[in-house]
Amino acid sequence: MSGKVSVIMGSKSDLEVVKPCLKVLSEFNVEYEIHVYSAHRTPEEACSAAANAAKNGIEVIIGVAGKAAALAGVLAAHTSLPVIGLPVATSMMGGLDSLLSTVQMPSGVPVATVAVNGGENAGLLAVRILSVKYPDLKTKLDRHRKAMHEKTLENDKALAAELK
Amino acid sequence: MSGKVSVIMGSKSDLEVVKPCLKVLSEFNVEYEIHVYSAHRTPEEACSAAANAAKNGIEVIIGVAGKAAALAGVLAAHTSLPVIGLPVATSMMGGLDSLLSTVQMPSGVPVATVAVNGGENAGLLAVRILSVKYPDLKTKLDRHRKAMHEKTLENDKALAAELK
Amino acid sequence: MSGKVSVIMGSKSDLEVVKPCLKVLSEFNVEYEIHVYSAHRTPEEACSAAANAAKNGIEVIIGVAGKAAALAGVLAAHTSLPVIGLPVATSMMGGLDSLLSTVQMPSGVPVATVAVNGGENAGLLAVRILSVKYPDLKTKLDRHRKAMHEKTLENDKALAAELK
Amino acid sequence: MSGKVSVIMGSKSDLEVVKPCLKVLSEFNVEYEIHVYSAHRTPEEACSAAANAAKNGIEVIIGVAGKAAALAGVLAAHTSLPVIGLPVATSMMGGLDSLLSTVQMPSGVPVATVAVNGGENAGLLAVRILSVKYPDLKTKLDRHRKAMHEKTLENDKALAAELK
Amino acid sequence: MSGKVSVIMGSKSDLEVVKPCLKVLSEFNVEYEIHVYSAHRTPEEACSAAANAAKNGIEVIIGVAGKAAALAGVLAAHTSLPVIGLPVATSMMGGLDSLLSTVQMPSGVPVATVAVNGGENAGLLAVRILSVKYPDLKTKLDRHRKAMHEKTLENDKALAAELK
Amino acid sequence: MSGKVSVIMGSKSDLEVVKPCLKVLSEFNVEYEIHVYSAHRTPEEACSAAANAAKNGIEVIIGVAGKAAALAGVLAAHTSLPVIGLPVATSMMGGLDSLLSTVQMPSGVPVATVAVNGGENAGLLAVRILSVKYPDLKTKLDRHRKAMHEKTLENDKALAAELK
Amino acid sequence: MSGKVSVIMGSKSDLEVVKPCLKVLSEFNVEYEIHVYSAHRTPEEACSAAANAAKNGIEVIIGVAGKAAALAGVLAAHTSLPVIGLPVATSMMGGLDSLLSTVQMPSGVPVATVAVNGGENAGLLAVRILSVKYPDLKTKLDRHRKAMHEKTLENDKALAAELK
Amino acid sequence: MSGKVSVIMGSKSDLEVVKPCLKVLSEFNVEYEIHVYSAHRTPEEACSAAANAAKNGIEVIIGVAGKAAALAGVLAAHTSLPVIGLPVATSMMGGLDSLLSTVQMPSGVPVATVAVNGGENAGLLAVRILSVKYPDLKTKLDRHRKAMHEKTLENDKALAAELK
Repeated sequence: MSGKVSVIMGSKSDLEVVKPCLKVLSEFNVEYEIHVYSAHRTPEEACSAAANAAKNGIEVIIGVAGKAAALAGVLAAHTSLPVIGLPVATSMMGGLDSLLSTVQMPSGVPVATVAVNGGENAGLLAVRILSVKYPDLKTKLDRHRKAMHEKTLENDKALAAELK
Repeated sequence: MSGKVSVIMGSKSDLEVVKPCLKVLSEFNVEYEIHVYSAHRTPEEACSAAANAAKNGIEVIIGVAGKAAALAGVLAAHTSLPVIGLPVATSMMGGLDSLLSTVQMPSGVPVATVAVNGGENAGLLAVRILSVKYPDLKTKLDRHRKAMHEKTLENDKALAAELK
Repeated sequence: MSGKVSVIMGSKSDLEVVKPCLKVLSEFNVEYEIHVYSAHRTPEEACSAAANAAKNGIEVIIGVAGKAAALAGVLAAHTSLPVIGLPVATSMMGGLDSLLSTVQMPSGVPVATVAVNGGENAGLLAVRILSVKYPDLKTKLDRHRKAMHEKTLENDKALAAELK
Repeated sequence: MSGKVSVIMGSKSDLEVVKPCLKVLSEFNVEYEIHVYSAHRTPEEACSAAANAAKNGIEVIIGVAGKAAALAGVLAAHTSLPVIGLPVATSMMGGLDSLLSTVQMPSGVPVATVAVNGGENAGLLAVRILSVKYPDLKTKLDRHRKAMHEKTLENDKALAAELK
Repeated sequence: MSGKVSVIMGSKSDLEVVKPCLKVLSEFNVEYEIHVYSAHRTPEEACSAAANAAKNGIEVIIGVAGKAAALAGVLAAHTSLPVIGLPVATSMMGGLDSLLSTVQMPSGVPVATVAVNGGENAGLLAVRILSVKYPDLKTKLDRHRKAMHEKTLENDKALAAELK
Repeated sequence: MSGKVSVIMGSKSDLEVVKPCLKVLSEFNVEYEIHVYSAHRTPEEACSAAANAAKNGIEVIIGVAGKAAALAGVLAAHTSLPVIGLPVATSMMGGLDSLLSTVQMPSGVPVATVAVNGGENAGLLAVRILSVKYPDLKTKLDRHRKAMHEKTLENDKALAAELK
Repeated sequence: MSGKVSVIMGSKSDLEVVKPCLKVLSEFNVEYEIHVYSAHRTPEEACSAAANAAKNGIEVIIGVAGKAAALAGVLAAHTSLPVIGLPVATSMMGGLDSLLSTVQMPSGVPVATVAVNGGENAGLLAVRILSVKYPDLKTKLDRHRKAMHEKTLENDKALAAELK
Repeated sequence: MSGKVSVIMGSKSDLEVVKPCLKVLSEFNVEYEIHVYSAHRTPEEACSAAANAAKNGIEVIIGVAGKAAALAGVLAAHTSLPVIGLPVATSMMGGLDSLLSTVQMPSGVPVATVAVNGGENAGLLAVRILSVKYPDLKTKLDRHRKAMHEKTLENDKALAAELK
């Protein structure tokens, strides 16, 4: 296995958004832990998970939250590891609250934010980050991009057939 | 003095927004502490300020922050005291990021949010909350509302004179 | 019983949003009244409910409304009690109209605004405010935060089991 | 003079936005009163101004306010006269808060809303409404539309000259 | 019958939004015409309907449209009658496009805009405008406001019974 | 000269936004007319300019307007020529009102919308459209893209020098 | 056949939005190609499709994409042909992300943007552009506008019948 | 030196936003290249810079752009390296267009987005990512977070002194 990721979500109800992320990590053979720690309901656990992540061998953290989504930012405040923020869609303008709460971080504490409900991309971004250190992930990512490329070209051909 | 408030702002640059709040607290003779503790730059200090507030005699906390304004929510996560959130205006739509990050709290941890840059109202809300316990504040608030009422009527008369 | 709250909603159709608020008040053994008074359809009743609240023993008011949600602000204009604003979701951007109409109060008349459809938090904020005066509520709130904390940790464990 | 309008603004600071409205009313020889009554700072005066408007000969009311702009809606709740809402620009997205608070009225109590900072149009709308009853205003409005038409054509010619 | 209104909608699909408006006009015994004329698909008919409205005895026009809702503004450009704009909800932020296209009129040509999908209020605003001329409508409006008031108080009582 | 464009702006105050458009048309040696015709203040002139454009040799129309920007849509309703919409920035969220009013056209009547205040792009889009017919414009556009490309590479080099 | 259009969509899932566009092109007897090329998943194919379009006889390109919709802009960067951008609706505010990503192009590279999900208008805009060169399309467009006009008048009559 | 970053900005005018990013990279002794390559004006250079980055020893790419900010996404489409997106503020709602165009990437191609105008955080995120591989950067980041922490506490003390 190459690299280790900690996925922390603010609520168990975020699991559907997280699943494509976990699928990516498994496919790339990246080890991961997953936890439900809330910045508002279990702040100590969330903070110490981040504070202890490095010494527990974690190399990337993914924080998943919706609404006033403080989680990723709070995690980033307690670690020097790269922290990815995954905003969860809400009824308030499709997740604009979650997005702004995650991405608009003040200077000094960055959160690497992906699209609202972008679980797959959160996983892929973690893999890209780990690939800086683990060359095998670089190879797999190139292969993944190529597969994605071919899949799209197949769709292109399928469409042509379909519309004939 | 009646009641004690802790005003915590995420950045020293928020002071201009906070000043009308401090002015209100002084006018109502409410004791206050003021600190610069950031949810992202000094999370431990912010958290322990909130966690220890009650035993230090604080009765209301005001959290002031802009952008991905996690501060008030994080404070509320570490205390059972009422926490007021004061969002600071930003260039992103005039502070919509600060407002949504402060007000859209998940169930279980409320933040009493006032208007963007609403420093004076943050102070008055603290006084209203304290007045539940301190009857003299109730009397002063009634007087304040009356004075405000009279000031507006004076403006009404001044306008009539001005437009004549 | 500790403390007394008046819940005023602008329309009977807001009841679903209000129910979690009532549940919280009951659980904390806080007395409450509930009324349907509209700032636009029964303004006199709304205003006099606020104006007479203090002398009727009310200590916190919760105003619930959607769209051009003037209710909480109008209630706050007629009383010195702390007034909580609960914006109700609408089809216009998920309730941004209700939120801005409730929270963007002019200086002098604060409304303690919670999240759109945040009924549970409206109730909890009322309890936090009352706890300034009633120490038993403080104890219950600490217990509630602890229970919430434990519930989240259980979810964390359940997730671990579920994903195994 | 034809018709009588009451212009009520929530704050004396709204006067700059109101001036083009007053200018229009004067030009059309429509009588007007102007007051500073706030829905939040002087609610009784605002309400009774609306409630008594009809018997004082007022035929149209214009409510001018910014932020959580409850004024026009509250006036409309206390009268059967047509009420025009003039939202004042704010730093929050250029007045989207004022606009939504004014226009998104619940069923039963309409407010005739004009553009943010649309003082001139508030005045012209009042004149159009009064012209239903006063035929001389109809004639003047036709003339005004014609003058506006000619002014625009002159601008068109001036532009041609300017760009030559 | 008192007064005459022309309801012009941009698309036949807007009929559901218009029905509460027609119901109000019928209840107040106001005569109305209704047409499907689009500012973009049948601009000549829309324009001449507005241009000829006054001489056909129309006293108020209601323009109903969604998306880039030019209809009410274009009608207002061709008449001196008061024109009410009724924006129709869309999937783009719940009708913010329709609302801004209707309400943000340039100086000189006002549109009296009501809430998104506010069909009932469009009708009531027409009645309020006509009541400036027709005293019987004034009486009916007062009665209507009273009935609405009583209906809300009944809801208040029903709620009390329901929650017991 | 190749092709002929009619630039119609709703207000003479839009000239600053239009100038880069005129500059482009001149540089590409495209003939143009320019007019101030408003959809709301001179609707007949605006409509007949569009209706007669084709027979006057016009091949592309550019409509420039702000706020409830009906102009481009109304022009498109009166012609089968391609109509470009250029939304003008406003204080309401930087021109979101102008943008939505221009681009969100109902099915049947398209407007080719460019960015808010995108005068240069309005001109370039007109040239691209005309180049379908006039091959010399195609050559010039390729040259223009190449020049732009080289200019950017020069900026790239200048930056390198500057930062050394 | 008159003219040739290339429709490029970023994802096969956009087909439903594209179908009304294809229908229009068929009805006007305009030849078209259709491809699934993504700016992010098959950037080379997307770029070379645009770069080679002119020499393959394409005269107009339509780029269809949602979310961070870079496709139309990237296509426009590789060709001097007119490029139409068709933003696809998303859950983020009904497609505001897609719209802004498509329309807010920097100076130098215009995209002719139509409404969110405006497939039919994308097709009609392509036809309007081609009609600059192909006079038969001009005739058909005039006929189409006339048919649309008559259809709307029929709806007007049907409504009158329906409401009787 | 530890690690190598390529900073690519869409326009030379973005330099002010980029400077704090360069300053961070210098302070952490991270090597960097900087280029002006536009996704729309020099797409080939932008694409090949990304495509060749890995073999040129680049380990992280930062894409800086405003408005329809396609740059970071296009870079990410041509490399497997982690790509950071830095949205530049615009007049359209303070950069909401830039933010959504950068962050709302489709599944398969992630962009690690930081706050609008968040130059310093773009640099710090690059350093956090590189620190996964380079342990000295981890040490420096811990030191940086500590310094930031101390600076904030100093501000806290300075404030106390200032307000005395």
